[in-house]
Amino acid sequence: MPKQLVVQKFGGSSVANADRIRRVAARVARERATGCDLVVVVSAMGDATDELLALAGAITDDPDPRELDMLLATGEHQSATLVSMALHALGVPAIALTGAQAGITTDGKYGKARIAGIDPERIFKEIGAGRVVIVAGFQGQSQVDPGLSEITTLGRGGSDTTGVALAAALEADRCQIFTDVRGIYTADPRLVPDARQLPVVSYEEMMELAHQGAQVMQVRAVELGWVNNVVIEVLSSFEDVPGTLIKEDPFVEQRNKVRGLAHDRNVAKVTLVEVPDRPGVAHAVFAPLAEAGVNVDTIVQNVGHHGTTDLSFTITRGDLAKTKRILEPIIRELGFREMTTDSAMAKVSIVGAGIQNAPGYASRMFAALAEAGVNIEIISTSEIRITCMIAEDQVETAVRALHKAFSLEEPEPVVQDQAGEAAASSGGAAKTSA
Amino acid sequence: MPKQLVVQKFGGSSVANADRIRRVAARVARERATGCDLVVVVSAMGDATDELLALAGAITDDPDPRELDMLLATGEHQSATLVSMALHALGVPAIALTGAQAGITTDGKYGKARIAGIDPERIFKEIGAGRVVIVAGFQGQSQVDPGLSEITTLGRGGSDTTGVALAAALEADRCQIFTDVRGIYTADPRLVPDARQLPVVSYEEMMELAHQGAQVMQVRAVELGWVNNVVIEVLSSFEDVPGTLIKEDPFVEQRNKVRGLAHDRNVAKVTLVEVPDRPGVAHAVFAPLAEAGVNVDTIVQNVGHHGTTDLSFTITRGDLAKTKRILEPIIRELGFREMTTDSAMAKVSIVGAGIQNAPGYASRMFAALAEAGVNIEIISTSEIRITCMIAEDQVETAVRALHKAFSLEEPEPVVQDQAGEAAASSGGAAKTSA
Repeated sequence: MPKQLVVQKFGGSSVANADRIRRVAARVARERATGCDLVVVVSAMGDATDELLALAGAITDDPDPRELDMLLATGEHQSATLVSMALHALGVPAIALTGAQAGITTDGKYGKARIAGIDPERIFKEIGAGRVVIVAGFQGQSQVDPGLSEITTLGRGGSDTTGVALAAALEADRCQIFTDVRGIYTADPRLVPDARQLPVVSYEEMMELAHQGAQVMQVRAVELGWVNNVVIEVLSSFEDVPGTLIKEDPFVEQRNKVRGLAHDRNVAKVTLVEVPDRPGVAHAVFAPLAEAGVNVDTIVQNVGHHGTTDLSFTITRGDLAKTKRILEPIIRELGFREMTTDSAMAKVSIVGAGIQNAPGYASRMFAALAEAGVNIEIISTSEIRITCMIAEDQVETAVRALHKAFSLEEPEPVVQDQAGEAAASSGGAAKTSA
Repeated sequence: MPKQLVVQKFGGSSVANADRIRRVAARVARERATGCDLVVVVSAMGDATDELLALAGAITDDPDPRELDMLLATGEHQSATLVSMALHALGVPAIALTGAQAGITTDGKYGKARIAGIDPERIFKEIGAGRVVIVAGFQGQSQVDPGLSEITTLGRGGSDTTGVALAAALEADRCQIFTDVRGIYTADPRLVPDARQLPVVSYEEMMELAHQGAQVMQVRAVELGWVNNVVIEVLSSFEDVPGTLIKEDPFVEQRNKVRGLAHDRNVAKVTLVEVPDRPGVAHAVFAPLAEAGVNVDTIVQNVGHHGTTDLSFTITRGDLAKTKRILEPIIRELGFREMTTDSAMAKVSIVGAGIQNAPGYASRMFAALAEAGVNIEIISTSEIRITCMIAEDQVETAVRALHKAFSLEEPEPVVQDQAGEAAASSGGAAKTSA
């Protein structure tokens, strides 16, 4: 049997100090002792990235994106070298590589660069020399001109993307994402005590869960895994217990079920009241927001009467001030009656690939929320998800009511494939953000 | 007149926090407003390098040199980007470059790499685009194989070397080394209240002063300036006053005078008592020390009698334990009587290019020390320097006595060159380490 190649990614809390770095090294050394080749991706230590942002903020309100990327990338340089040193101390040959040294090239969009390609030559060379390769996550380099390279970062959570992208490029057998939770749960266990850990979720379900607020993994990383069919395991870096597999799930449509809940408290709502109901208005509102980098989530337009309509949309709270500044002149120009905003919003979602094939999930969700006294302000749906915007102070009530209404505490019935083998997946959903 | 190109180097204390970084940016902006092009070299912020060393030390006693270089280099990456951001905030176009991006290639000796070459293409391109170029000091990259580059550091104080090497490669008009003192003094002003700042010192004098303990500039950087004839100015980053020029000094031999004092408290003495006086003994002692990287400073061997001799040498205190460990088996093997050590030593030196042409300096030095009650343990000399090893607790007494004995508080007589122009240099010596 050829040697297995495993990519392991450790987040910031797993490498937050010297002690934890030594623990990560011990975990890596244990895996290596099983006889596999290893590529390890690390985030910056604990709050290192926030501290660098604070330092930049103490110097200027508006740091240059190129310089900021060069600054932030040092956080992962540092943790990568420290993990490598800790492996050396255990007698394990290891080498730390920057994103650039690891052959990761990106486009030139500072702060949110996308990986354009990975040249695995150096990594394979180091593996061939018997070394564990530690790669600084969250970063790459862009070639502005031949010979003129710049350091770029992939944006928050970019180390997940680095891990999955490397697993795809190196054709790794597994990609393990180590985190401070045990895996993906039917709901945030901090809110719902009987939330269950899921053995398997599909890429599609994980993407919806991540997008709707589950913070265990980044949406982009899941998407990249899906496109490249990388089997991802989310597991605890502190406990040695099985995690949750994210992979193609052939039984997903047979389950016909809600698999988990996600919630997100970082939601603000903007409503434009009595908008003239004529072509071009939506473009006039949303084009300048997109240009300013405001990520508009859900858009709802109510039925118009008297030639006007009410237009509501949600954004993250950090973008609210910018959004108001951008829209105020446009409102005057287009003749809206007014703009109202509410920054104390949240969203709760039910997610499950089975939803698309079965009716009645929406009405069961609405009934459960109504019974719990939770008012729904906006509703949005996808094929495998239903999301309700609610007041932030009702999140806990809503999540508990939904977990109970869809019996998520109960194990799912075991699904048999054609060979009669029990599917690995027997539960269903996501740890969500607080 | 073509635009002047100035290289400015700012040390760690000059960029120790956000406030000081803004002050450095203001200083750079002021220089730029005079119409010159600027390349700025920065050290890591304050204690950043020591903090990174402590972090590595918390993980392993014996960090891998390659990983350590990669870790330490991040200190200058960070300060370079922050200075660039601070310039942007003042409306000055700027760009931070790592050593590698700045085209600095080195040999592969981690921790003490030497600059092998500088490709100025990128820097000239950025200058051509109207930008102030901020270069991370203390580092470069070595090409292990084509396409496989490694980050190297130049060793402590390497940012001075970066500054001078860039000034040479870019053919800059000036190289300014900003520091926390005003320039080079006849002695450490903290020890000698009437120490004078010197307007000019020669490269040779500065090298001796730096080597004998003056910590204002690194020996290697001065040497590099000498070889490339780079005019270096040492000046304060906190006060806007003229500094000291280090340059070829055609009048140096006419001055015929001691120009300054240096002292160094970081000295330990090792004496090998009753060493067999036969060929090969010195080699047997010093070869293993050199191999272990112990830097042996002064070696003195007393006249032998009865077929044995006493061999003394000095090292830095940090190397004492290692030296003892290495020499103990050798002593037994070669049959010395014993090894004695003294870690509370120091050295004081008088330096001046004039010394070589005039007799009597040594005896005046010994007389002054004797009169002050300072016992001399070892003497060593070069063409332009006389150094005495003394007990550490007598440094202050010795330096004051020597400063007075050679009338260093008095301005030197003005020397006229052939065109009748007064030489810029009118004083003579060095701020020394405490």
